[in-house]
Order: sequence, then C-alpha cells, then structure tokens
Amino acid sequence: MYTLVTELYPIWRSITGEGVRETLRRLQRHVPVSLVEVPTGTEVFDWTIPREWNIRDAFVKNAGGERVIDFQRSNLHVLNYSVPVHKRMSLSELKEHLFSLPEHPEWVPYRTSYYDERWGFCVSHRQLLALPEGEYEVCIDASLEPGHLTYGELVLPGASGEEVLFSCHVCHPSLANDNLAAIAVATFLAKHLQRVPRKYSYRFLFLPGTIGPIAWLSRNEGQVERIRHGLVLACLGDSGAPTYKKSRRGTAEIDRAVIQILRERSPEPRIVEFSPYGYEERQFCSPGFNLPVGCLMRTPHGQYPEYHTSADDLRLVLPASLADSLETCSKVVDLLEGNRTYLNRNPKCEPQLGKRGLYRALGGLADAGGDEMALLWVLNLADGQHSLLDMAERSRCSFDALKRAALMLLEHDLLSDLNR
Amino acid sequence: MYTLVTELYPIWRSITGEGVRETLRRLQRHVPVSLVEVPTGTEVFDWTIPREWNIRDAFVKNAGGERVIDFQRSNLHVLNYSVPVHKRMSLSELKEHLFSLPEHPEWVPYRTSYYDERWGFCVSHRQLLALPEGEYEVCIDASLEPGHLTYGELVLPGASGEEVLFSCHVCHPSLANDNLAAIAVATFLAKHLQRVPRKYSYRFLFLPGTIGPIAWLSRNEGQVERIRHGLVLACLGDSGAPTYKKSRRGTAEIDRAVIQILRERSPEPRIVEFSPYGYEERQFCSPGFNLPVGCLMRTPHGQYPEYHTSADDLRLVLPASLADSLETCSKVVDLLEGNRTYLNRNPKCEPQLGKRGLYRALGGLADAGGDEMALLWVLNLADGQHSLLDMAERSRCSFDALKRAALMLLEHDLLSDLNR
Amino acid sequence: MYTLVTELYPIWRSITGEGVRETLRRLQRHVPVSLVEVPTGTEVFDWTIPREWNIRDAFVKNAGGERVIDFQRSNLHVLNYSVPVHKRMSLSELKEHLFSLPEHPEWVPYRTSYYDERWGFCVSHRQLLALPEGEYEVCIDASLEPGHLTYGELVLPGASGEEVLFSCHVCHPSLANDNLAAIAVATFLAKHLQRVPRKYSYRFLFLPGTIGPIAWLSRNEGQVERIRHGLVLACLGDSGAPTYKKSRRGTAEIDRAVIQILRERSPEPRIVEFSPYGYEERQFCSPGFNLPVGCLMRTPHGQYPEYHTSADDLRLVLPASLADSLETCSKVVDLLEGNRTYLNRNPKCEPQLGKRGLYRALGGLADAGGDEMALLWVLNLADGQHSLLDMAERSRCSFDALKRAALMLLEHDLLSDLNR
Repeated sequence: MYTLVTELYPIWRSITGEGVRETLRRLQRHVPVSLVEVPTGTEVFDWTIPREWNIRDAFVKNAGGERVIDFQRSNLHVLNYSVPVHKRMSLSELKEHLFSLPEHPEWVPYRTSYYDERWGFCVSHRQLLALPEGEYEVCIDASLEPGHLTYGELVLPGASGEEVLFSCHVCHPSLANDNLAAIAVATFLAKHLQRVPRKYSYRFLFLPGTIGPIAWLSRNEGQVERIRHGLVLACLGDSGAPTYKKSRRGTAEIDRAVIQILRERSPEPRIVEFSPYGYEERQFCSPGFNLPVGCLMRTPHGQYPEYHTSADDLRLVLPASLADSLETCSKVVDLLEGNRTYLNRNPKCEPQLGKRGLYRALGGLADAGGDEMALLWVLNLADGQHSLLDMAERSRCSFDALKRAALMLLEHDLLSDLNR
Repeated sequence: MYTLVTELYPIWRSITGEGVRETLRRLQRHVPVSLVEVPTGTEVFDWTIPREWNIRDAFVKNAGGERVIDFQRSNLHVLNYSVPVHKRMSLSELKEHLFSLPEHPEWVPYRTSYYDERWGFCVSHRQLLALPEGEYEVCIDASLEPGHLTYGELVLPGASGEEVLFSCHVCHPSLANDNLAAIAVATFLAKHLQRVPRKYSYRFLFLPGTIGPIAWLSRNEGQVERIRHGLVLACLGDSGAPTYKKSRRGTAEIDRAVIQILRERSPEPRIVEFSPYGYEERQFCSPGFNLPVGCLMRTPHGQYPEYHTSADDLRLVLPASLADSLETCSKVVDLLEGNRTYLNRNPKCEPQLGKRGLYRALGGLADAGGDEMALLWVLNLADGQHSLLDMAERSRCSFDALKRAALMLLEHDLLSDLNR
Repeated sequence: MYTLVTELYPIWRSITGEGVRETLRRLQRHVPVSLVEVPTGTEVFDWTIPREWNIRDAFVKNAGGERVIDFQRSNLHVLNYSVPVHKRMSLSELKEHLFSLPEHPEWVPYRTSYYDERWGFCVSHRQLLALPEGEYEVCIDASLEPGHLTYGELVLPGASGEEVLFSCHVCHPSLANDNLAAIAVATFLAKHLQRVPRKYSYRFLFLPGTIGPIAWLSRNEGQVERIRHGLVLACLGDSGAPTYKKSRRGTAEIDRAVIQILRERSPEPRIVEFSPYGYEERQFCSPGFNLPVGCLMRTPHGQYPEYHTSADDLRLVLPASLADSLETCSKVVDLLEGNRTYLNRNPKCEPQLGKRGLYRALGGLADAGGDEMALLWVLNLADGQHSLLDMAERSRCSFDALKRAALMLLEHDLLSDLNR
C-alpha cells in the first residue's frame, strides 16, 4: 500500500481532468476498476458537471526570468481549478493571488476554487515574505473546457444482491494521508475481497469530492436501496488512533460493526457522532437518501496541523497505519459477512457440553476460560432475537470468539442457523 | 427591574390582604395586570379560601414603654398571619411566641402560620438573648376577617389560543430575592412581550403561595389544556448561576427549551429533576393536571443561607442577575415561538449553496464556519421529523444560528415551512 | 446462622450421596424442608442423573504406613467424585493424581470430576513438594453406584400462588463461605417467612450444583411460570460488600428491588450485569426459561483468593455479614410484598395535609422533612402508573418511608389501593 501511495503522490489531481484518470489507471494494475465518464453540463440533482480542468505548467518568474514559484516542483503551488493566465504584473497585484499559511511559514497550503473562476498560487509564508518588489511574469497553462468528470467504480458480486459500499475521494493532488492512504487501503481491500467467498456484493467508488458522490447518486438513484452498509474511507495513513464517525442513523449495523471491531482492536478508539460536514457521507447521508454509511479515518480532517498543506507528504503516512486500517476494514467485512442469528436447539438449561468434549472435565476452577465463556454466551443468547453482533456487544467476547463458538455448536447440532 | 424591587420591598405582604393588592397595583404601572378577588370561604379543591388578614401595627414594649420589637422597623418581625393580641406577659410567656435563628444570630427569620391560629414575633437571636426579665406589653393590631384572596392575572393574546404560562408568588413580605426579583422579571417580560408579535398567548399569574395556584386552577380547570408550556419564576436575583427544575414530565418541550437556552448561555447551569416540593409547580404538576411547567431559579430555595431571613434584602439582588434572568426568559420565549419544523425541498444530496452565495467560494479550509455548519445541519435534518430544537440538541449549534440559517434557506426556496 | 455454618462445615458433600442428605436433615431442625430423591439414570433435559457417590475413607500412606494425605483430616483432600482405588504406586505415578495450588502453597484446592471417571487427591503445594520418593499406598474407599440425586425443597404458601424463589447450592464439602453461608441465610430467611403473613408463596431450593437446578426444572417445567421473582444466594458470609448480579432480563422487578435495597443499605454495592456463568441462574436464565432470577452474593465467586480452597474456612465467614445478608434478603421480600400501586383520590392540586395533622403547622422553613417529602412524592406519583418501587427509584426516598407514607394517606382516604 505504501508503494502505491508513493507512486500516486506526484500526480496532479483535481475534481476533473487527466490526473484522476491517470490515478485510476494505476489502480487498474491491482483491481479491475472501471472509469466512468460524465459529460460536462450533465445535471446531477442541484448541480451541473463543470468543465474539465487540465494543467500542463504554471509558474511565476521574477524579473531575472527565474521560476520563483514552480508547478513542476509541487502541484500544490497552483490554486486548484485556476483559470489560465499569462501576464506580467507588479508584486502587489500578484499578492492578491497568493495564498500562504502565516501560522506554518514553511508549509504550502492546498486551496481550490472549483465553482468560482479565479486563478492563484499557493506558497509558503516564508517564500511570500521573501519576494522582492518588481515585475513578475505569471503563467498558468491550464485549460477549462467541455469534457468529463471521471470516477472509478468496481463491483464484486456476492451471493446476494445486497451491497456493502466503500467510497473514497480521489481529487486531491500531492497530499499523502488525505487521501492517497485511503485510496490504497480501498484498493487492497478490494484486492483481498476478490479472492474470498462473499455473501454481500461489494461496491468500491473512487470519487472526486462533493460533485463525485452527487454524480454517482444521481446516476444510481434507483439502486441505492441495495446498499445495506457503507463506509467512507479517508485519512487512513497517519499515526493517530482510528476514528469512526457514525452514520446519520447512528445505530445502523455498520455503526455497531465498526465500533465493535475498533473496541476489540484499539485501546481508545474515537467514536464521533454524525455531522453534515466531512466527505462523501455528506451526500450519502443527505435526508433524501439517509443511507447507513459511516466514515472511517485515523486523525480526522482538520484535526492534524499538516491537513491540507504540503506537510501532508509521504512522511506523514506510516505503513503500519495503512496495514492497521486495512485489517480494521477487513474485520468489519468479516463481521458483516458473519453476523448471523442462531437458535439454541436445547434452550431449556445448558446442554451437557462435557460429554461432547466442549467443556473442561475438571471442575472447581475459578473461572471459565474465554472459549468456554463464548460457548455459554452463544447458547444463552441464541434465542432467535440476538445476532452474533448483539452477543458481542452484550458479552464483551470478541466477535471472532463468538463466531468460532457458534460454528462449534452448529457442528454438534446444538444450534440452528436462522439465516439459511 | 431593580428599582421595582426596591419599591416593592417595604410593603408587608401575606397570602391575603392589602399588601398583595398594593403590590399588584404597583405592577399595573408597568403592565395591565388584573386583580382577581376570591371570597373567603370559597372551596378550591380540597382547600377553603381563608379569612383575609390585614395588619396595621405590632410591637413588644418593655416595662419602660420602649418598642423592643417593632413591626414598623421590619414587617418580618411578625409571625405572618398572626391573630390579634394585646396583653401584658412575662418574658418566659413571651418567649413561647418568639422565633429566632441561633445559627445566624443577627438575622430575623421569616415564619408563617396561615392555617393554624397563633401569634408570634420573629427576632434576631442576639435580640432574643438580650431581652431582660420583666413584664412586656405585646400588641398585634391585625384583623382576620371575611374578605378575599387576591391574585394578579394578565393575558397577552397571540395568534393561537395555545398558551405559555408564567407564574410567580407574591405573598412574601420584605424578602428581596424571594420573590420580588422574580416578580420584577415577570413584569418586565410581560412588558416586553406586549410589544412583539406573538404566536402563542401568554398568561402571567402573580399568586400567593400554595392557596394561590390552587384557587387559580380550581377556577380555570376547564382551560388548563390550553397551556402548552409553563415556567414558574422564583429567586431570580441572586448572584448564583441559573437553575432549572424540570417539569414532572421531564422531557416536555419547555424542559428541553430551557435546558437548551441555559446551555447556550451559562457555563454550568444546574438542571435538577422534578420533585413535589417548591413553588406553584407543586400544584401545576399534581397528577390530576401534570402540566408541562418547570421552574426557573438562580440559587434554589433553601440552598442559600439568607433564604427566608432578613438577610434576603436588597443587597442580595443584583441588577445583572435580574437582567440575565429576564434575557434567559426572553430567549426561551423566542425558542418556543420559533421552534418550527421544516422540509428540505432538495433532500437528495446537498444543494449547491455556493451558486446562491450561501457558501464560501474558496475550498480547502480546515473547517466550515459556524454559520455554514448551521446551514448544513438545517438542510440535513429538515426531513419533517426534526424541529429546530431537535436540531439544536443534536448539532450543538445555537438555536438562533439554526433559526437564522432556516430563514436564509427559506428565502432561497430550499426549505418549506411545515407549520404554515 | 454462624452456629449452623459451624455444624455443617465438617460434613463431606458432593452432588449426590449421604453428605447432602445429612446436610438437609440438619436444616429440618429449623424448617420443614423436604428431601426429593431423583433416581440415577433419570433423563433431565440433555443430562442424565449420575450414579450416587459415597465415600467412607481415603488416604495415601507412605512406605512407613503413615497417612500422609488423609480424608479424615479434611474432606477436601479427595478429588470430589473420585472412583474407588486401592493400590500401591511410585511417587511419580501418584503425582499424576495430585492437585495443588503453587500460588498459595499452604492451601488445599477443591477440585471435582463429576462426569469424567477419575480419581485424585488435593494437597497443599508445600505438602506435595515434601513428598519423598518411594512407594505409596493409595486408597479411596468410595462407591459410585445406582442411587439418587437428593435435593431439598420447601414451599411456604402465600395468599397468591405466585412465587418468589430462593435457591442455593448444597454440594460443596468443607467450604464455609461457598456455600454454607448462603445455606444458613436461606434457612433463617425461610424460618422468618414462616412466621409472617405472605402475599406471595415462597419456594426454597437447596440444590446440588448444575445438575440440581436442571433436575428441578425438568421435573417442574410446567409450573415455572408461577415464579414472579427469584434470587440465587451464594457466598453470603465474607467481609466484602454485597454484590448483585442481574437476571438475564436485566430490568425485572427483582433486579430493581434488590438494587433499590442495596442502594439504601450499602455505601457502594456492586451491581453487575448478567453473564451465563455462575450458579443456578445459569439454568433459570437459560433462553428456554429466562426466569426473572438474579444472584445475591458478597464477594463474587473467583474474586477472593480463598475461593475453592481450604482457606474458605470458618474464619472467612463473619456473623455480621450473615446478619447483613439475611436482613438484605428480608428487606427485598418486604419490598416485593409491599410494592403496591395507588391512586391519589384527590389528584388535582395537593390535598390540605395540615388540616389532617399530616403536615407541620409552621411555615417558612427551608425544606420539608423526609417524612413530608415521602407524603408529597406518594401523592404526586400515585397516578395508577407508578408502583411504590417506581416512586422509590424516582424520589430517592427509601421504600420504607414511601410505604409508611402510603399507609398514612390510605388511612386518611387520600389514596385508593389499586391492588385490592
């Protein structure tokens, strides 16, 4: 995953244009993601697909002809979606188009202007202060023309048409944690799920921010009811502990599943309530859809200082965090796949586990071991009213331990599987 | 308000008599409160309106003819509702009729005996101890005769016949915080509400304790169902933080409204559960009525040492506390008046706020500002199931910010008002 | 109770055999408990009543003929339910049959092997280490033959056929806190209840562990619906604070009743959630029964170091803890018996308590006394929807204070008893 992040890092990206296409093509080396093209001018709910933006070069040259600000050095230097410009101007005129971060004078900010036609450059505050008076040549060799909005989509069909949705945004240029980390995790999760039997179908969406999920929902409005569970993935590579932001519903199975897995895996996971700010969940959880879609992050957007600056670089992403994020997603999938409801076939008193070899023979010990507790919990709660997830929440046994216990009891004809 | 408290302070008051009438007449200079007279002997539920008590003078003179206890110096010196007496007696006989506070030897306690015929004097403990042996002349020039119980009532009609009730007690003599402070706040709240458009009708009651609300409820039993929200006001002038005591229902809209406003205004408001002791809420929340009536105080009765003593004087009441209490009441009214339910007319995905000038143009900043968050929350929760108060509780935006956001979205045809 | 514990302490007991019969016969001196005999081979749900185990003697003799391990000194020395054995063997062969506690080298552990045929001895670790090489004579003079499982049952009929169940286990040999303490508390509770009028019928069960409640439930399957409330008693004599483990239902009246009483009596009672490990509640709360049965303990099983060792001796049990446990049980019974629902016959406003002599005459005091608060709470909540227990939970008055208040109000015709 880290190698993929490294490979994608230099590509310039925006909400439309070749950068997204190039990114998705790199993902195709891992999984068969399709590129979907939505033409400029298409109406998607209240919005319209904008013109496609592409950029070849951009610079500010000083009187001596030196590139003092250079897109070739970092694609963050250009205000994303800048209209083309090529002219000479004084420093004071130029400064109206420069963005910097006085509180972090070494970092270049990431700024955009998708729906308001303007141009600009982003620079470190130190660099801004060092610019001498004089005439500057300003050039943004970009185009803003009818074209397409591009997104990636991959469906892994399962036994049922019910779907689990994973979504991430792909519109940010050279920012590593936000969101190349999540793109890599989604890609490797899809790669893993390709190879295993699936009860659910899985849909992976690689979308430009805001307009991306709006376009997808607009084109797929009739099928969203298939989505039983969904997870937006973002900022999954930094060193922070995982954060789960609940769906608008707040108690959906995806909410309970992620919280269960995080509590099993992390000493202090952050669980935060839904709010209508953030990533694709803003659209998936709009009141007309209200889908059971939460958001998995490590440190949330805006809560780490490097957020949306040049300091969100390859050093901010840790291979161990990527691996932990992938494993968390994979455990959530295992839970959703395995969350069955059972009926104790011997519900009056405990069955005699000892004669079936399921219980230690020697009595008098101070407590049952973990595996025996899982057996006892499953038997006690397998009344047809409790799923394995209900049992995990009540018992504090891990979901895996309960699943193993249930399979063992099934083998001994002590349970019926109500889902079959 | 502080001037009004000062003006009312010297008047002797009890549950009946000229003191209450005089108090209400002073309020009439501010708002057109009506005086309602209920004759002695009227049965009001389990109770009977008692004889009217009036007092002209009262004293204890020592052998030298000096007034050692003198009603003219403080009306607290007489046990409230004392029967008339005029005789000579020894110190030991007198002492059976004296009440003092050994734990606060400089303060005169406030004591009453409304339904048990007796007489007595209240003195500071220091004064009690200093009384020499000898004969004393005791005189209470009071009358207890058929007459009336008097209360004040003011109705400000609104667009709807549904009512908001404000109630306070008016039977205490020279005690400033309890309850001249709340009388002043209620009067000025009524004065303010007279001048503004009103969805609800507002009823203000100025009642003697216990028998007052019982008499009012008895006479208005058929109309109490109009009361949608109610607030008993008491002890609103001291320096303590506000306290809200919930209605018996506990989750009525008035409970949620006051709690919301207190949380927005106060760092640490006290929220206490209903209990069947206190002020008029004892009657409004009796099981046969169970009205949605809570109680707003600053420091609750019995929890400040000056309570029901001569130390509850004009120094205990702060103009700033009166102003804060009035503003809190006014904000609660604003919330009740403005607590509407809206429907997002564009519920599938977010509408494009930017093209309507409702959203900043520059992207990439770390968080949405407060006003933008309020817009996003209203859009997200305007599903016809959430009132603005529901949104405030869930979003932690202020009610005002959400109301402003809703009005802005209404103007742009992005919401429908379901209450129209 | 302590005397009874002392008397029962030396008796060897197991899940079947003369030890249980002898124990129950001693209880018969206090209360008329019946001995129920279930024949070996009887099928009870998934289980079969095992052969009856009796033991006369057991020892390990060293080469010199000395008894180095001796059942006569402590019945804990034999692995409970050991099959008979009499042979000579080397130390290393013997050691495969010895159980000790390295972490508590002076204590003899309590171990059982009911359903797996083996033999063994339990010794202190110090003793184990001190055994020299050599030949040993091993003898367990026990029998494992068709017979019966014995349990004790006592029913105290009440006005109604609805039952309160008390259950304790009687299968442990010389262990004092677990469970002679609870046996003594149950016996004296029954003795007390015999002498008082009873709304409910009371059933006391003295059962061998696991197979005991299974046998009882199997034989009484058709009548368990009579059980309205139940309490398993265990480990009631140690110095720890009381612990209540909730029933599987979690909010049954027995759960609320015990928690209410513990909160009134104990500064920091432990309230723990149901889990399917423990005592008879494992069977009573199996999903096919799901009876409202909780478990009252002091320090829970496995949470004190002496648990299931020879250190659970007569010194671990305190007369004061036994008395406190009995009084807690008795208070719980009082609550269940007295938990009635009343209707305020004067529900509109407060009735005038003063004229009935139920309220202090002198007004102006800072708060109502506890008894007056109980009167006010009962009047306020006696709407036919709140039991006295509901009132206790909401008011924080003690159940007794509310009951006394209700009786006083009944006498004055201010309440109707809805249960009559």
